[in-house]
Amino acid sequence: MTQLESSIYKSIEALDAVDGMAGEASVSVDKVKEVVETVKSIVFPGFFGATSDLRTKLELLHFLLRGQIKLALVDDENGYERSEDLCCSFIEGLAEIKRLLYTDVQAIQDNDPAVKNISEVISCYPVVQAMLHYRTAHALLVLGVPVIPRIMTELAHSRTGIDIHPGARIGEYFAIDHGTGVVIGETCIIGDHVTLYQGVTLGAKNFSYDQEGRPVNKPRHPIVEDHVTIYSNSSVLGRVTIGHHSVIGGNLWLTHDVPPCTKVLQGREQKA
Amino acid sequence: MTQLESSIYKSIEALDAVDGMAGEASVSVDKVKEVVETVKSIVFPGFFGATSDLRTKLELLHFLLRGQIKLALVDDENGYERSEDLCCSFIEGLAEIKRLLYTDVQAIQDNDPAVKNISEVISCYPVVQAMLHYRTAHALLVLGVPVIPRIMTELAHSRTGIDIHPGARIGEYFAIDHGTGVVIGETCIIGDHVTLYQGVTLGAKNFSYDQEGRPVNKPRHPIVEDHVTIYSNSSVLGRVTIGHHSVIGGNLWLTHDVPPCTKVLQGREQKA
Amino acid sequence: MTQLESSIYKSIEALDAVDGMAGEASVSVDKVKEVVETVKSIVFPGFFGATSDLRTKLELLHFLLRGQIKLALVDDENGYERSEDLCCSFIEGLAEIKRLLYTDVQAIQDNDPAVKNISEVISCYPVVQAMLHYRTAHALLVLGVPVIPRIMTELAHSRTGIDIHPGARIGEYFAIDHGTGVVIGETCIIGDHVTLYQGVTLGAKNFSYDQEGRPVNKPRHPIVEDHVTIYSNSSVLGRVTIGHHSVIGGNLWLTHDVPPCTKVLQGREQKA
Amino acid sequence: MTQLESSIYKSIEALDAVDGMAGEASVSVDKVKEVVETVKSIVFPGFFGATSDLRTKLELLHFLLRGQIKLALVDDENGYERSEDLCCSFIEGLAEIKRLLYTDVQAIQDNDPAVKNISEVISCYPVVQAMLHYRTAHALLVLGVPVIPRIMTELAHSRTGIDIHPGARIGEYFAIDHGTGVVIGETCIIGDHVTLYQGVTLGAKNFSYDQEGRPVNKPRHPIVEDHVTIYSNSSVLGRVTIGHHSVIGGNLWLTHDVPPCTKVLQGREQKA
Amino acid sequence: MTQLESSIYKSIEALDAVDGMAGEASVSVDKVKEVVETVKSIVFPGFFGATSDLRTKLELLHFLLRGQIKLALVDDENGYERSEDLCCSFIEGLAEIKRLLYTDVQAIQDNDPAVKNISEVISCYPVVQAMLHYRTAHALLVLGVPVIPRIMTELAHSRTGIDIHPGARIGEYFAIDHGTGVVIGETCIIGDHVTLYQGVTLGAKNFSYDQEGRPVNKPRHPIVEDHVTIYSNSSVLGRVTIGHHSVIGGNLWLTHDVPPCTKVLQGREQKA
Amino acid sequence: MTQLESSIYKSIEALDAVDGMAGEASVSVDKVKEVVETVKSIVFPGFFGATSDLRTKLELLHFLLRGQIKLALVDDENGYERSEDLCCSFIEGLAEIKRLLYTDVQAIQDNDPAVKNISEVISCYPVVQAMLHYRTAHALLVLGVPVIPRIMTELAHSRTGIDIHPGARIGEYFAIDHGTGVVIGETCIIGDHVTLYQGVTLGAKNFSYDQEGRPVNKPRHPIVEDHVTIYSNSSVLGRVTIGHHSVIGGNLWLTHDVPPCTKVLQGREQKA
Repeated sequence: MTQLESSIYKSIEALDAVDGMAGEASVSVDKVKEVVETVKSIVFPGFFGATSDLRTKLELLHFLLRGQIKLALVDDENGYERSEDLCCSFIEGLAEIKRLLYTDVQAIQDNDPAVKNISEVISCYPVVQAMLHYRTAHALLVLGVPVIPRIMTELAHSRTGIDIHPGARIGEYFAIDHGTGVVIGETCIIGDHVTLYQGVTLGAKNFSYDQEGRPVNKPRHPIVEDHVTIYSNSSVLGRVTIGHHSVIGGNLWLTHDVPPCTKVLQGREQKA
Repeated sequence: MTQLESSIYKSIEALDAVDGMAGEASVSVDKVKEVVETVKSIVFPGFFGATSDLRTKLELLHFLLRGQIKLALVDDENGYERSEDLCCSFIEGLAEIKRLLYTDVQAIQDNDPAVKNISEVISCYPVVQAMLHYRTAHALLVLGVPVIPRIMTELAHSRTGIDIHPGARIGEYFAIDHGTGVVIGETCIIGDHVTLYQGVTLGAKNFSYDQEGRPVNKPRHPIVEDHVTIYSNSSVLGRVTIGHHSVIGGNLWLTHDVPPCTKVLQGREQKA
Repeated sequence: MTQLESSIYKSIEALDAVDGMAGEASVSVDKVKEVVETVKSIVFPGFFGATSDLRTKLELLHFLLRGQIKLALVDDENGYERSEDLCCSFIEGLAEIKRLLYTDVQAIQDNDPAVKNISEVISCYPVVQAMLHYRTAHALLVLGVPVIPRIMTELAHSRTGIDIHPGARIGEYFAIDHGTGVVIGETCIIGDHVTLYQGVTLGAKNFSYDQEGRPVNKPRHPIVEDHVTIYSNSSVLGRVTIGHHSVIGGNLWLTHDVPPCTKVLQGREQKA
Repeated sequence: MTQLESSIYKSIEALDAVDGMAGEASVSVDKVKEVVETVKSIVFPGFFGATSDLRTKLELLHFLLRGQIKLALVDDENGYERSEDLCCSFIEGLAEIKRLLYTDVQAIQDNDPAVKNISEVISCYPVVQAMLHYRTAHALLVLGVPVIPRIMTELAHSRTGIDIHPGARIGEYFAIDHGTGVVIGETCIIGDHVTLYQGVTLGAKNFSYDQEGRPVNKPRHPIVEDHVTIYSNSSVLGRVTIGHHSVIGGNLWLTHDVPPCTKVLQGREQKA
Repeated sequence: MTQLESSIYKSIEALDAVDGMAGEASVSVDKVKEVVETVKSIVFPGFFGATSDLRTKLELLHFLLRGQIKLALVDDENGYERSEDLCCSFIEGLAEIKRLLYTDVQAIQDNDPAVKNISEVISCYPVVQAMLHYRTAHALLVLGVPVIPRIMTELAHSRTGIDIHPGARIGEYFAIDHGTGVVIGETCIIGDHVTLYQGVTLGAKNFSYDQEGRPVNKPRHPIVEDHVTIYSNSSVLGRVTIGHHSVIGGNLWLTHDVPPCTKVLQGREQKA
Repeated sequence: MTQLESSIYKSIEALDAVDGMAGEASVSVDKVKEVVETVKSIVFPGFFGATSDLRTKLELLHFLLRGQIKLALVDDENGYERSEDLCCSFIEGLAEIKRLLYTDVQAIQDNDPAVKNISEVISCYPVVQAMLHYRTAHALLVLGVPVIPRIMTELAHSRTGIDIHPGARIGEYFAIDHGTGVVIGETCIIGDHVTLYQGVTLGAKNFSYDQEGRPVNKPRHPIVEDHVTIYSNSSVLGRVTIGHHSVIGGNLWLTHDVPPCTKVLQGREQKA
């Protein structure tokens, strides 16, 4: 027996002795990526590759998405029928996703003096990718599709450094500049015309645990009202409310409510 | 009509009703990526795949880059001729890009005790990728090439978490350690021998707006003089000047000038 | 001579005049990526593509890894023989890597109320990727394999924004939430049941230099004892010790020891 | 103007002056290839890659095939609706295609003493590929699908050197040994248990032309009855009938009827 | 030493002892394939993938072709300059290639009653591929480009079973039906409106040898005048002339001249 | 239930009712292709892509080939151990394969006046590919490896139209010109310095059947002695012997022995 064979033999024995877990036929990250790419080609036609007509793209979207939803619903005995309903509902909701995304594009353009035109925003700004993934994922999560939404937002996280939980609720005209390090938690509620900068965390302060010591999933992230701006690297934590038209400076650690129309800077808080 | 057909029909109607925008034959992100890869194989031969001779690589670079510049100049009636001039000028400037990049590599090596040798820096350090993209993009931007520079730096941003605007001006021997979350704004001016750590923002404090409410693109980011070090997660905002040989500690929020040879730490500022 | 030929001619002359460096037949980033993917398919079978049996995967791993180790040891005259030993030792250690990774998966699940089940953690959480890369890289580094470990952790850094030096020592049940911007330095020592949030830096405060001005590689990063939690965007710098069962709040800049069972928040430090 | 630009200019002018034809959005050879691969994975599961369940494969087949049929029916104003009918009919007919193909596999095995087992026939024998393409193409042609059947059989022709027109009618238990150079024309009628060897042509002798000089598409290829064998490189031309249980030797040129149970060799014809 | 290492060691020794030949940086078969694909997209726009405008395709063609010609002329000290001339000349000749190919397409359509329309001929008929490769290769060979023409026609041979030497001279309106097994030798001269069927050989009868025993390359293949048809599997060998408007039946072995307007069948030859 | 679902339902039922066969984890055609490509890069270094050193190529070959041999021996209870022996034996025999292939290359060059140099033969001549596949496959078959040899020669058949059974025995300096349609049967024995032209069949005349009606695998193909040439499209059938230094003309059907030094033409046979 060669050295290698002996090592392989030992390794197999030892690996088998470690309790692990084997994945089963399950949702495919690559297929979910294709789903989002197809949505992208529907919402921003001509920017990202596919040149076929809208009907063909929708049929492709249906084919890809239904396949993944069926896998995601593998434990649901009516999964096969439900997947068609969910898929059709999602397709009917695409126009609203498109409408929201164009408000985001508009907001980005209004915020950044370096922008030359709207094409540049769609082609270059990572936040557009992040919002496309988030708004698609959120729509699926609202319909009750498991697993897939989370995979979608992680794909955006890996690519842009922007980590938005698909459960968060985000209004119109949402902008993030630069974006790396932004975290938006599962139970956040964000109004319209909100702008964030890189490194902003809208997170939980601490968790409640149930009697068995498992963390409880209840509202634990901030509410950010309309027309709020939060500058870079600030963290807003817990179920606090940032009132409308407020401005939160950078590098802050905020764990209390902020009234509307307030400017919070390091060391002081003042009516705007 | 099946459920799906009905959904598709409704979706098409609704999508058409949303005002959107169709991209046209335009600069390709994938081709821009190839351009940067080719520059990389010219500057760091033997490290990244291509093994052909220098002349062949330059011809490939010309072919790829000219194609994209023509697309970027699609609204310029002399675009076809100008693209050749721009492309040739860029090629003549490659040696300067190479020279600058080797100063960066040197600076990285000088800063990090974990470095074993210069090959390791070129192969492994994300900042080398980021600077290759930035220095290439900046050279094109200076020549007047639109769109492409921004796509180049976004590619690096996605890959490294380092977001440098191609318009920024950066001197020799520039180093960034770790890098995730670094943001360097469009009108920054950075001297020689400057070192940044992860999460450093050199950003704008606020924008001026013109009479139509559009943000004005004027100098609004810091000037960082020679031999300055800025530690992790600090933000320097607005058109302030950090004097030469200064050291800015971590986690700071700085919106005023700092005189030369100054050490700024949390809560205090002192002559070095 | 056309404009292009003249530009190419000038460019070649100028490029040759810049002192640079040519890489040689060396470790391939793509092959290292395949090595990690193979380890992943061994540790988490069924989740990531490959469906072959364990023995076949181990043979593939041996083939890929040995090839890269030989290249990494190119300056070692016994490199050919040593590469087989190193490769076999690594394979024998795979079960321990697997065991540790399942403790990490468990810790992630225990920390995040948004988690539905363990499959979701393995499929979606970027920290699982980061730890897989790190634990694989660390095992190789401990065996004395050069270059490859660093390439592995940079691959994870690019993908997840989590930058763990392969030299760091990390105990069981390690969790990072969100993760973007986390930096863990080369000489860190981290105990069991430690949890970090996004943007946490465990870094060096400053370097010592030797007589020739080269930075000295000695212990310069924190020691974090068991059951410590560090919240988002805090930096712990230098060879300080965070005592067991301590909690470090967010956005802090910490350069001193913290006794066990202590809660450090902005502006105050208290016994938990 | 450089030499190249001048050449390109001249070339464009000259090319435009040549009357040509521009293809439109049309059936894709690559997609048709995928259709056949999917049929293959349904008929011979486990031999050729795809491992998903039958239902999933049929849904994929529907998606791919319907897309191509719609393109093929682009001039038919009811093409969209008809494509669904045609696709469903084809899917219902798959079991018959499968049944026929297994008779072919059986016939190949019975003919060749070099065969070890049925797996080898399915994996290695080019005639299996050719018949899979032909039987799939013929079923589509019978349903009235244009263009696609012909593309399918040309794909097999390119790969195997066996050129069967999709319009030919071929019975059960059909075998071709080696196969290179076999040609079976559009109006051939072939019975059961027929065997051909390489280079056999079942072709037309001459064409009729209509009043405008266009060749007329009428029965012009042979009828080959049950249990006939035709040896290598023989040509049977025109609307002749080869009677059942006949054997046609090699290298023959045959343009007349052959009665049942006849052996035709070079220079003589005899009752078997 | 394991069994494998010992085998590898022996094998290296033994392999080194066999006199062989090492290829050098040379013409790439894959790149030559790209050249032909580009010509195809110029001549038959819209049929085969590429959708860019004519100028862009010609620039791509120039880039690809010039690179290969330079490699093919590696032993020519003026190769670099000549490659540009040759490439430009070829580009200027593209319109003639296009014109000839459309005559071939027309001839194919006129010959085959199974043809539905001209699109089908361009998309499906292997002879169109074969003639595209041949006419492109012949144009390059006439210009004096070495090696590349032969690679081009071998690519077509592999794909279609039609083997045309690039040195052959072929007139307008040339058709081959089915095509597998057709061979057309280097010194053939073929007129206009000639039609061949599968398996036809236009070959050499025997070779002359020079004083050193090397075969002499002189005219040794047939001359086929205008309006000749040769049916399947016939061989015409040696420098014979088939007079215009003649018809050669199938399965014949012909080594003598045939006067114009003659019909040659098995066993007899008659004035048409 | 939609039309499609109903069709799928019916189709599944009907497909299940047809007796078929499911392939199991078995030899992969794509992997076998890689094995041959690796042998090619060892025998003709520098011609076909891979540039690594000989030892690395042999290790790759071992890895790929052993994996496939194990699968091929899946029913052999000692398959795992035997696969290593077989693989090592094959590797030790590579030098002989190389030696034989260079004799073939030499023979091709000596036969064709159109050849410019030996590089051209190796790069362009399909028979070189065919012989590489055959000689590799034959060596494996002689060692007792099942299935893989047949897959190898079918790969060459598909690509070149040359169909050589791996069981045939072929001497040195073997040449085939053009090659399409050549068939060489399983029990052929071919001497040295033999040349064939396109369309030549060395086949069986008829089969013996055993008592159960299965064809018997016994010597049934021709013996061709040294220095024989067979011209295009001739068939030699049955266990006949073509004596050394004989020449067989084209288009012949030969089923009897031919004495040495004989010239066989259509209609006559004469002492050379």
